[in-house]
Amino acid sequence: MTKIKQNQDVSDAIVAWQEAIGEPAVLNASTNTADFCTFASESAALARLRPIDIDGVRRCLQIASEHGVAVYPISTGRNWGYGSAVPTQAAVVLDLSRLNQITDYDETLGTVSVQPGVSQQQLYDFLQQHGGRFWMDATGSSPACSVLGNTLERGFGHSPYSDHAGQLIRMEVLLADGRLIETGLGHFHTAKAADNYAAGLGPGLSQLFLQSNFGVVTGITINLMPTPDYFQAVYFSIDQPAEIAPLIDVLQPLRLKGVIRSALHIGNAHRVLSSIQQYPWAATGGVTPLPEPVLQAFGRQWDFGAWNGSGALYGTRRQVAEARRSIKTALRSQVKKLRFMDDETLALAKRFQKPYRWVTGINLPEMLKLIEPVHNMMKGKPTDRIIASTYWRKKMAIPQDMDPDRDRCGLIWCAHVAPTKGHFAKEMTDISSEVLSRHGFEPGMTLTMINERCLDNVVSICYDRDVPGEDQRALACYAELTQKLIAAGYFPYRLGTHAMHLLQQYGGQEYLALLGQLKHLFDPHQIIAPGRYSASDQ
Amino acid sequence: MTKIKQNQDVSDAIVAWQEAIGEPAVLNASTNTADFCTFASESAALARLRPIDIDGVRRCLQIASEHGVAVYPISTGRNWGYGSAVPTQAAVVLDLSRLNQITDYDETLGTVSVQPGVSQQQLYDFLQQHGGRFWMDATGSSPACSVLGNTLERGFGHSPYSDHAGQLIRMEVLLADGRLIETGLGHFHTAKAADNYAAGLGPGLSQLFLQSNFGVVTGITINLMPTPDYFQAVYFSIDQPAEIAPLIDVLQPLRLKGVIRSALHIGNAHRVLSSIQQYPWAATGGVTPLPEPVLQAFGRQWDFGAWNGSGALYGTRRQVAEARRSIKTALRSQVKKLRFMDDETLALAKRFQKPYRWVTGINLPEMLKLIEPVHNMMKGKPTDRIIASTYWRKKMAIPQDMDPDRDRCGLIWCAHVAPTKGHFAKEMTDISSEVLSRHGFEPGMTLTMINERCLDNVVSICYDRDVPGEDQRALACYAELTQKLIAAGYFPYRLGTHAMHLLQQYGGQEYLALLGQLKHLFDPHQIIAPGRYSASDQ
Repeated sequence: MTKIKQNQDVSDAIVAWQEAIGEPAVLNASTNTADFCTFASESAALARLRPIDIDGVRRCLQIASEHGVAVYPISTGRNWGYGSAVPTQAAVVLDLSRLNQITDYDETLGTVSVQPGVSQQQLYDFLQQHGGRFWMDATGSSPACSVLGNTLERGFGHSPYSDHAGQLIRMEVLLADGRLIETGLGHFHTAKAADNYAAGLGPGLSQLFLQSNFGVVTGITINLMPTPDYFQAVYFSIDQPAEIAPLIDVLQPLRLKGVIRSALHIGNAHRVLSSIQQYPWAATGGVTPLPEPVLQAFGRQWDFGAWNGSGALYGTRRQVAEARRSIKTALRSQVKKLRFMDDETLALAKRFQKPYRWVTGINLPEMLKLIEPVHNMMKGKPTDRIIASTYWRKKMAIPQDMDPDRDRCGLIWCAHVAPTKGHFAKEMTDISSEVLSRHGFEPGMTLTMINERCLDNVVSICYDRDVPGEDQRALACYAELTQKLIAAGYFPYRLGTHAMHLLQQYGGQEYLALLGQLKHLFDPHQIIAPGRYSASDQ
Repeated sequence: MTKIKQNQDVSDAIVAWQEAIGEPAVLNASTNTADFCTFASESAALARLRPIDIDGVRRCLQIASEHGVAVYPISTGRNWGYGSAVPTQAAVVLDLSRLNQITDYDETLGTVSVQPGVSQQQLYDFLQQHGGRFWMDATGSSPACSVLGNTLERGFGHSPYSDHAGQLIRMEVLLADGRLIETGLGHFHTAKAADNYAAGLGPGLSQLFLQSNFGVVTGITINLMPTPDYFQAVYFSIDQPAEIAPLIDVLQPLRLKGVIRSALHIGNAHRVLSSIQQYPWAATGGVTPLPEPVLQAFGRQWDFGAWNGSGALYGTRRQVAEARRSIKTALRSQVKKLRFMDDETLALAKRFQKPYRWVTGINLPEMLKLIEPVHNMMKGKPTDRIIASTYWRKKMAIPQDMDPDRDRCGLIWCAHVAPTKGHFAKEMTDISSEVLSRHGFEPGMTLTMINERCLDNVVSICYDRDVPGEDQRALACYAELTQKLIAAGYFPYRLGTHAMHLLQQYGGQEYLALLGQLKHLFDPHQIIAPGRYSASDQ
């Protein structure tokens, strides 16, 4: 079925779309190749539609139905490492980035309504301009990436509001047949609490549209975190990879009891290094993967360990002091370094980098490149620093206007979950390390405590798409890694467009049949993103 | 359609059920009249099935399908004030109370899996027997009420885990056609994080089965709150009803910022009095509704105000001290009384009731009847004290084995939501007070801050079903109250079995059509609880 669609003639549909939403809003496929992605993809973007409002989106869907052409909705298309803006199967991309309004804001209760095109930076700026009473939760992805898109993918950030889908209140969804549905209490058009009470009355429908192809989400309302009185970041590291198990076991009750209320990210040495700089071609004489002694030398120079944690405390000064006391008590004997840093300490560190090193032992000039954006990200300020690491294996310098797709940066994310217990963390990361190393990639990864009870091992397969054969090797590595992690009981929380078959391959048969029935109910002609988190491509 | 079913001959089906699950497991209708409820209901329980395991439930559904007889699943049937165990429309009750196993418990991460028949008391006892490392969240309903049933109805309790549906991780659902579906990661049968990661992969289905008739939920996994180092209850009151608006506005940032992390309940004077004692027939000379001077006299005697708040602080001693400091600062000038009470203070108060009164001014002997169970409930211990208030207007003494259905206690709950803003709280409670008073009922109610941004006004229409005409007057009062609240923009968070038409009446037409399509997909022959949170009875 995919192959037939790949060669589908969509010219009649394109004429109809041009008439409906205007010529400039319809781009042909040549500007949107399948290869415009951080890994090789077989499916093609047959064209690109850029409507400016919900009515335009509805007309796009209607024409898609009439002509039997599938559309693939994207928000801003920066789903880097998971397929960027490339469809799961051949389709016309339905680009919603021009729907970019912040449509509502409650500055007392801290809720905001955004359309698909609203970027992290746009929301951040908006909140700053409105007095900074609330913070958004930023992800490590680009400042230009969509708040809505990340939420629909169940992305997570760094603050106590890190579970983006968990902070979702209401959705506005366009169905394939043109109906516009509001979830939660939203369909009661006069409900005062529509932006405050997510559950609604009767069966809840919002979750149906997360990681889904059941409809086109044209707007969401989300909660914002009230700006705390005080903020303090915490950093710690351990020397030996195997110490990750006891470290997780010590951190687990802190997260469970709410001493640490935010997602805690623990990156390994490879991940830290790739966040500071590109691959050290000179120091390695061009050899890949990175030799262990070179990594260790960087670790000594910049004072990072085998695993390096970052998190933050939020509250009044006394609340933060009390949390800090608990963390110190728990971690003191477990970690090599344990440091707390607030805005003042950071400002001071920037002014006095040398004496700071003398006092603390940190080689700050380089580490600040990473610490400052991470510090700000934990305060809800998006950064492009993390996405810079997609240039890790590139031999070009990192450009000012980063675009991993255009610059053929190779990146495949692989993110699997486990209960927050040390031996699972150890087993999961051991599998990831072994598989990546054997395939010739640096096993850069983080462990994130995404909620009070669950760990996410986010592994980056990072490479240079301009090196012949690397695309295939990276995809083969991903295939083996997911197979091994799943065999050990660690399932993905999210899939790239190339990996949607994993749901079908491992899911319960009766469950998948039900997903298929639901898809048929919402979109009987398979117009919306066929194959995306879908039980089958029928 | 209802009327036809009301007289439906189910004798053939009963014979088949008797063969399938054994004669003693099938009770005929005479023991389960429609009238066995806290208000008058027109729909009849045609019989009652009591299977002992999932396979038995599946066979019950199969026979129901074959014979075209609807079944109405209940857990323990104590949905008091919302319809008890009475079906929405005439049906055979599918009583799941014999599926009463606690099937899994993770004593490190604090998750537990329960079947429908597991009661609050059973889970409480289980956790105590297993070392008391975790607390359940108790509701004010009976200790014998189902944990699962309350969660499916989106009930709430008093601790930081008060949003029961929000703490739901995984569901096991039997569909009408006999398929057993596990939601979240559960359908990946080897997923280690199935009990820790609620979202699963792809579209989320769990919420479809909340306040729903799409399937029969036979098990859930929920999060438990880790027992805090320290616990301290907080009580406060205000004198004038109108002061509720500024009080809510002062409390709102405390809840939003997480100074108060639990559901905060604020009961009015009527609600407090009915929780302490039955209607003062002697003091009123038999007159109803309660004259204001009598209420005020009780308020002076027992030291409660127009509105009386209870909440709790959880954490380390220092965390609690810091929260207490913030609360004192915020509330000091707003409230008449502000008191904090921990386990020690309470024990002391019980030992020295007279000197305690002398020091604090509280008439403790009577207030302790209420304060002690509320104190314990905020620590996850279920109590039958609150359900005792259903006997408010009864002239019989409250029996040891309370059963509001059997004893013809009249109770209709009416619970509508609003954004947490003072003027909404005022308007909503003014409407509730006015309507109940005009209909001759005491306007007993609470305002609960059910999440960081939303208030729930839970109104109890409390009466004596043995007084001729009261059932009709109470239902008329409910009808007017819901109509007025909805007209003002305050929608219900939950419906009684008699009030399911409100969804149909006020819901968005396209949304309701979608709900109808979903019902048809899950249960094409309308075997499961027809009419329950349903778009139509077709």
